[in-house]
Amino acid sequence: MTQLTLELANRVIAEAFKKASGLSLAPLSVVVVDAGGHVIAFQRQDGASFGRLQIALGKAAAALSLGVSSRKVADMAIERPWFVGSFAAGAPHPVIAAAGGLIIINDAGAAIGAVGITGDTSDNDELCASTAILAAGLKARA
Amino acid sequence: MTQLTLELANRVIAEAFKKASGLSLAPLSVVVVDAGGHVIAFQRQDGASFGRLQIALGKAAAALSLGVSSRKVADMAIERPWFVGSFAAGAPHPVIAAAGGLIIINDAGAAIGAVGITGDTSDNDELCASTAILAAGLKARA
Amino acid sequence: MTQLTLELANRVIAEAFKKASGLSLAPLSVVVVDAGGHVIAFQRQDGASFGRLQIALGKAAAALSLGVSSRKVADMAIERPWFVGSFAAGAPHPVIAAAGGLIIINDAGAAIGAVGITGDTSDNDELCASTAILAAGLKARA
Amino acid sequence: MTQLTLELANRVIAEAFKKASGLSLAPLSVVVVDAGGHVIAFQRQDGASFGRLQIALGKAAAALSLGVSSRKVADMAIERPWFVGSFAAGAPHPVIAAAGGLIIINDAGAAIGAVGITGDTSDNDELCASTAILAAGLKARA
Repeated sequence: MTQLTLELANRVIAEAFKKASGLSLAPLSVVVVDAGGHVIAFQRQDGASFGRLQIALGKAAAALSLGVSSRKVADMAIERPWFVGSFAAGAPHPVIAAAGGLIIINDAGAAIGAVGITGDTSDNDELCASTAILAAGLKARA
Repeated sequence: MTQLTLELANRVIAEAFKKASGLSLAPLSVVVVDAGGHVIAFQRQDGASFGRLQIALGKAAAALSLGVSSRKVADMAIERPWFVGSFAAGAPHPVIAAAGGLIIINDAGAAIGAVGITGDTSDNDELCASTAILAAGLKARA
Repeated sequence: MTQLTLELANRVIAEAFKKASGLSLAPLSVVVVDAGGHVIAFQRQDGASFGRLQIALGKAAAALSLGVSSRKVADMAIERPWFVGSFAAGAPHPVIAAAGGLIIINDAGAAIGAVGITGDTSDNDELCASTAILAAGLKARA
Repeated sequence: MTQLTLELANRVIAEAFKKASGLSLAPLSVVVVDAGGHVIAFQRQDGASFGRLQIALGKAAAALSLGVSSRKVADMAIERPWFVGSFAAGAPHPVIAAAGGLIIINDAGAAIGAVGITGDTSDNDELCASTAILAAGLKARA
């Protein structure tokens, strides 16, 4: 069973920045959290606005706390805005319903953590997240 | 010019009130914050209701934490209400998605603070903010 | 019955800074609040650390919410730390139990607002507060 | 040198871990924040408990919000527990009154950010912070 170490978390962040650099994206902020949604590592690129930890963490926590990608939480928010809104208001962590947060799973399919990315479009944020997870030898929940 | 001093902050507030007076606007409240969103100066005109610091600060902090004017945050809120709503719920500061909050930048384009105004229509609030920033010899992010 | 206008609030702040300048004190931050503890005006001098609004406001609000100067709230905190600690934890505003917060009263002795000052020693903060209230033609609760 | 870049922040963290490794300390968590107390980078070593971001950030924010090292905030807390306790209760960020949080200053002595470290004794946490700041070519407020 894969353990999400600091070394792996740092590698996920490095790979996300590498992908973003190749695509000339806006300054990104990337968080990697453990299965409990607690931050292992975070980096905010120069020029990013100061609220980025909350957004990156909110995407990762939205994913883990509801068991799906933060893109699917965004879909939920369109279908049932009151559900996601009230969940966010009552949660002990930020909940950001927008693509860019992906759950990292082990071989048994269990969540071992998540990555949350913010800074460019939500689609590009998520693309960097999925690319980085794979490049670090990890697996994202579909 | 890269430092937002108290003297400059007070001048921004004075210029905003001057503009508002010329237009006979409702009582305004104006906050000037540093790059981290922390209050340098605030003034609430007689007759304004008591929650005005939170609103003015929430416009300035919405702008700085997301890197755009609070008018653009309001646009985001129309397109993606769940994103702005959940960001506001999880942010460690008030987030007000309405025009009237503008980022002040240095010559290199980096944020050195922000102004937030509330009291009249959001359009008039923002007009006073942009006029005041210019009149104080400062520059707002477009 | 004296009304605490923005003009008076600004004068209190100016007088506090004048007193502090004469004494070569550290950079001060001064808040003036209305009878409900809501900010009318605040100024933070250059070089002051960023948490100063919370401290200044916490002194003013400690005074008003308990009906005595924040110096007396500090005395209470020594005698009954659990009372002040739990009051602070449950209050909807910061509560700072240290000298520097004084209630401003009208001729009938009723609270019309308060001033809170932070930046130098608590004794000096309070000296600037009492001096400024008098210099602005107002009266502090003893 | 007046800007705390992500590159510098990462170097501070790497130097802190290097020092800790040389001393065989317990797993550390290190945060580097900008002048407004907003996280630039954070890393939590394997084996550290999950609340470490709040503690590291609380040390850095305690330092910046009050303008002194978090060791001095701890001294304040011994002399005036009600002051620090009530400040912590009212602050919009965690406030941890324990050594390990140091302000990083520019050549003019102004705060440009802070580092907060937690995991071993507070003395060792602070030793790693001061060593790391120097090793990264930066300067800490005494």
